[in-house]
Amino acid sequence: MSKPPILLMGHFYQPKLDELEKLYECHRLWAAADPEALFASLADRCQIVVTAGGRGIKADEMDRLPNLKLIASFGVGVDAIDLEHARKLGIAVSNTPDVLTEDVADMALALMLGTIRRIPQGDRFVRDGRWLAGGMPVTHSLQKRRVGIVGLGRIGRAIAKRCAAFNTEIGYFGPNRKSDTDYRYFSDIVQMGEWADVMIAACPGGPATFRVVSRAALEALGPDGVFVNIARGSVVDQEAMIELLAGGGLGAAGLDVFDDEPNVPQALIALDNVVLHPHQGSATYTTRAAMGQLVIDNVGAFVQGHELPTRVV
Amino acid sequence: MSKPPILLMGHFYQPKLDELEKLYECHRLWAAADPEALFASLADRCQIVVTAGGRGIKADEMDRLPNLKLIASFGVGVDAIDLEHARKLGIAVSNTPDVLTEDVADMALALMLGTIRRIPQGDRFVRDGRWLAGGMPVTHSLQKRRVGIVGLGRIGRAIAKRCAAFNTEIGYFGPNRKSDTDYRYFSDIVQMGEWADVMIAACPGGPATFRVVSRAALEALGPDGVFVNIARGSVVDQEAMIELLAGGGLGAAGLDVFDDEPNVPQALIALDNVVLHPHQGSATYTTRAAMGQLVIDNVGAFVQGHELPTRVV
Repeated sequence: MSKPPILLMGHFYQPKLDELEKLYECHRLWAAADPEALFASLADRCQIVVTAGGRGIKADEMDRLPNLKLIASFGVGVDAIDLEHARKLGIAVSNTPDVLTEDVADMALALMLGTIRRIPQGDRFVRDGRWLAGGMPVTHSLQKRRVGIVGLGRIGRAIAKRCAAFNTEIGYFGPNRKSDTDYRYFSDIVQMGEWADVMIAACPGGPATFRVVSRAALEALGPDGVFVNIARGSVVDQEAMIELLAGGGLGAAGLDVFDDEPNVPQALIALDNVVLHPHQGSATYTTRAAMGQLVIDNVGAFVQGHELPTRVV
Repeated sequence: MSKPPILLMGHFYQPKLDELEKLYECHRLWAAADPEALFASLADRCQIVVTAGGRGIKADEMDRLPNLKLIASFGVGVDAIDLEHARKLGIAVSNTPDVLTEDVADMALALMLGTIRRIPQGDRFVRDGRWLAGGMPVTHSLQKRRVGIVGLGRIGRAIAKRCAAFNTEIGYFGPNRKSDTDYRYFSDIVQMGEWADVMIAACPGGPATFRVVSRAALEALGPDGVFVNIARGSVVDQEAMIELLAGGGLGAAGLDVFDDEPNVPQALIALDNVVLHPHQGSATYTTRAAMGQLVIDNVGAFVQGHELPTRVV
């Protein structure tokens, strides 16, 4: 029997990509000399697309594959996939939830601590020999601070659990109050900004959360406030954030995600009060392997006519 | 009444130093044109020395102040004070415990997470524009790793409490098994190194712990092992550590303390698998103020003939 064809829209964890390529006839869109010709050659027989969270797949790309039945995405966020269009066309969508929760929460804490205690700045201070001329300035403490989490889903809860061990008070903003937690609920993100010392964005991306961390929310967080983003660049008003960070209206930021990655504005790179990270929330060996395995499992389930292990649509 | 004279051996948190100088006749040894003359001028009347943890006071310096009755140190570690000599001469010694525990534990976690998830390296990766050419390599995860703590005192316990929230298994090495904890005890640090994925030094400095984190302990930790030090440079064999980090025998290190601070060997600065920090464990506004207040309180108690709040000797 011939191997089923798969169109790969974006790169993912190499060892698992290698496994996938052993099982299927894989076509790499990013390596195609003529992408249009590749779409055309697959149009009448390709039922499966594998993509990466940041790459997703657009409506017009789905339209060019009239036999498409499954979009298996590497990542938990499906905001780059046109879900409405997939639903309309009867295309199933799978993601890789749960397996990345703990590592992404670790990244949120790494960035929160690194931003407040200025870990990369301290590393530069030592490497540049500045310590020889005197001590590094004193910083703020995390102790007894209030942490406001935007989105108390799986990742938000894992972040909250960690924060609790650091003697912080925890609040959250989201569309609904959760009945199973005592963390302080805010239905208004600006009110949470006024209350919080640290705000951590942990919500899904997509239209529903576009710029939810508004200029007003960041202004409420204020000159000593710290903003951490491990969600998506789209959830914050990046332009306002940069302006406030540069002008002293917001204290500091730790960012794993950006608008238009991997393009990070020079105005952000120029700042000393930010810790920048290249979207590595889930980027550990174990988690990337588990995510890749889930992609393989979803594709395998589809091919064998079974229920998808982690279906979104 | 004239203000009692104090000899200041080392600088500490400026706002609290200012307060001390309002209450006492303070003489700054580090600013003295002729230190010997300063010692001589204070010899017959100075009962109080205020010093900083890293500066301490040597036996011969105590001998030059025959009326010395109190050494009030800014910091919890008293390894730079010749305690035996102070005891022999009947000089009381105070430090600033407890108030810095939580911030130092935060620093241990900031360095552990920053080292494993490569936070300063990621920051450089983005700032240098390397992200534009492709993603940063995947790293190890902290999840389900074993953390071995060297010294389960106040700071060690605060570190353990935090680590528990990160789904790690916790062990400790020290002179005695603690009856009030279930963490795994090791009486042999090399055995703990074999067991652990991460080793965090949180013990006091001084002769009893000199090079306790030996070459053998670091070799046992191994090529994927991470060593974190928020204790003292003296507790680790720095030369062996650098050699192992450079040669692949030890995976990575996050270091807030060094031998001969602020001198950090160029061989360490040259490494990419280390996160370096300029001894900032307790360096937050709130904690440095609390430490300074404890110095003032100990000096005040001595002057008024009361019991010292935090006496060591």
